[in-house]
Amino acid sequence: MGKTYIFGHKNPDTDSITSSLVMADFERKMGNLDVVACRLGNLNKETEYVLNYLKIEAPKLIESVEDGSNVILVDHNSPSESIDNLNDVNILKVIDHHKVALETSYPLYYRAEPVGCTETVIYKLYKENGLEIDKTIATLMVSAIISDTLLLKSPTTTEEDKKAVEELSKIAEIDSENYGLEMLKAGTDLSSFSIDEILHLDAKKIDFKEVKAIVDQVNTADISEVMKLKADLESRINEIISEENLDLFMLLITDIVNSNSQVIALGNSASLVEKAYGVKLENNTALLKGVVSRKKQVVPIMTENA
Amino acid sequence: MGKTYIFGHKNPDTDSITSSLVMADFERKMGNLDVVACRLGNLNKETEYVLNYLKIEAPKLIESVEDGSNVILVDHNSPSESIDNLNDVNILKVIDHHKVALETSYPLYYRAEPVGCTETVIYKLYKENGLEIDKTIATLMVSAIISDTLLLKSPTTTEEDKKAVEELSKIAEIDSENYGLEMLKAGTDLSSFSIDEILHLDAKKIDFKEVKAIVDQVNTADISEVMKLKADLESRINEIISEENLDLFMLLITDIVNSNSQVIALGNSASLVEKAYGVKLENNTALLKGVVSRKKQVVPIMTENA
Repeated sequence: MGKTYIFGHKNPDTDSITSSLVMADFERKMGNLDVVACRLGNLNKETEYVLNYLKIEAPKLIESVEDGSNVILVDHNSPSESIDNLNDVNILKVIDHHKVALETSYPLYYRAEPVGCTETVIYKLYKENGLEIDKTIATLMVSAIISDTLLLKSPTTTEEDKKAVEELSKIAEIDSENYGLEMLKAGTDLSSFSIDEILHLDAKKIDFKEVKAIVDQVNTADISEVMKLKADLESRINEIISEENLDLFMLLITDIVNSNSQVIALGNSASLVEKAYGVKLENNTALLKGVVSRKKQVVPIMTENA
Repeated sequence: MGKTYIFGHKNPDTDSITSSLVMADFERKMGNLDVVACRLGNLNKETEYVLNYLKIEAPKLIESVEDGSNVILVDHNSPSESIDNLNDVNILKVIDHHKVALETSYPLYYRAEPVGCTETVIYKLYKENGLEIDKTIATLMVSAIISDTLLLKSPTTTEEDKKAVEELSKIAEIDSENYGLEMLKAGTDLSSFSIDEILHLDAKKIDFKEVKAIVDQVNTADISEVMKLKADLESRINEIISEENLDLFMLLITDIVNSNSQVIALGNSASLVEKAYGVKLENNTALLKGVVSRKKQVVPIMTENA
């Protein structure tokens, strides 16, 4: 039936990269041999840390696939985060943990669960099909779960994520706390990054009802370090707002140690942030206490208040 | 967390009815005790045959649920086939085998597979979770699979459907061929039905790109019997077209023994049927050879040609 391309979302994070690698392993073990793990963008430093730790290659960098190709989407389903010609390919499967934003004209295998990480869903697929998980695959999986749940502390964390980390850490032969903190810290090192690179680390276009928005997120171990760049960040954000015709740009600077986010909000709808969180923006910024999850603590609350 | 309402699509067929009953059993066995199997419409004769055979009650007839309620959707995900306030309830799970047509603002458990019947997916859920399937549940499941796949002959049929029927027939202690044919024939008895009841047996609103359409299907063992009602059917269909502001109404009269459908096509876009199937409508009707599956042989082909 031809090659099957497996990829996560644009601006890939550790879950998107590892899920494409792990899903390729899963498919091969299930007998679908002609699969290629791919990615739609550059690695971030956290993911680089993981692949260096394991001494393995990154998935293949692609921009698109030919019309009619078979694809498996991992860690996303929204066309805005995927290849441009998503409507013209054959989606065999979706494995995800996000809200549903896809429309198809044909039935497919769609598996999403409200858990902290796509890898937790894939972990269940291995279990359900009685497949063994080797040490490299286990390390990839546990890295993604730690990344998405910020060491199982994010409110997106479920019992299933915890159970997966517990079992996978044993197979991976790692101490998940120590390994995880090193990995997360590697991801917060912004020293070699330009303003553009910081802003595009993980930006996702999203609509809160009529409000066209981007919610960007940068993890850090020290919010004040990132806030030193505030003037430059704002100036670039304002450019993006007019280029993309946005109503709102939210940059969450998330303290992964203390689990808070400093938000910088710009655009005509910036006051929506004040309404949604009961805060006052001063110089376009406010501290959102306890907010670390875009999916659980930003998207639904902003949508409700829009 | 309050009651959870489980229901299939409007104008329920055997899969929608049995899936709500079986999914309620599954949820209870998984520890979610406060579940109610529901239905959004009257039983058809085929489903009545199944429930009479088992001497069990139909799911509870409901029109809507309160805003904020927890629901599980089976055998559908499209808002147009569901309760009117779907946007205002909390969808815990979707278990389905149709194309994806839902948009949510929150992650949920979404499990769809490209198999012939929702019950085949639910059968896998029992297996994956190591739950036993009792005789009544097995009979409900096998009835739905036979119904949706027309005795495993429809092109929607997969190896997984066949495997499920094989194992479930043993638990149900039935000969799936004999039982299935009796059940299907019970469903084709239109003698006590008004024109309105025939037309609303299983109608689904659907858009082929810009073309607003209803694709209706009536199963029969004898197409000519139904065609005797052609004039009355057409007159009522034309009323529905203007009431609902439709571009197209397709009525498939499906011969379940020989696996063909006679189509009656009305509306401004009726010629789309000619284009899609390479047939000529005469007096608004044509024979579509080998066409029995709305999902596999109507929706994608009509969408492509629209």
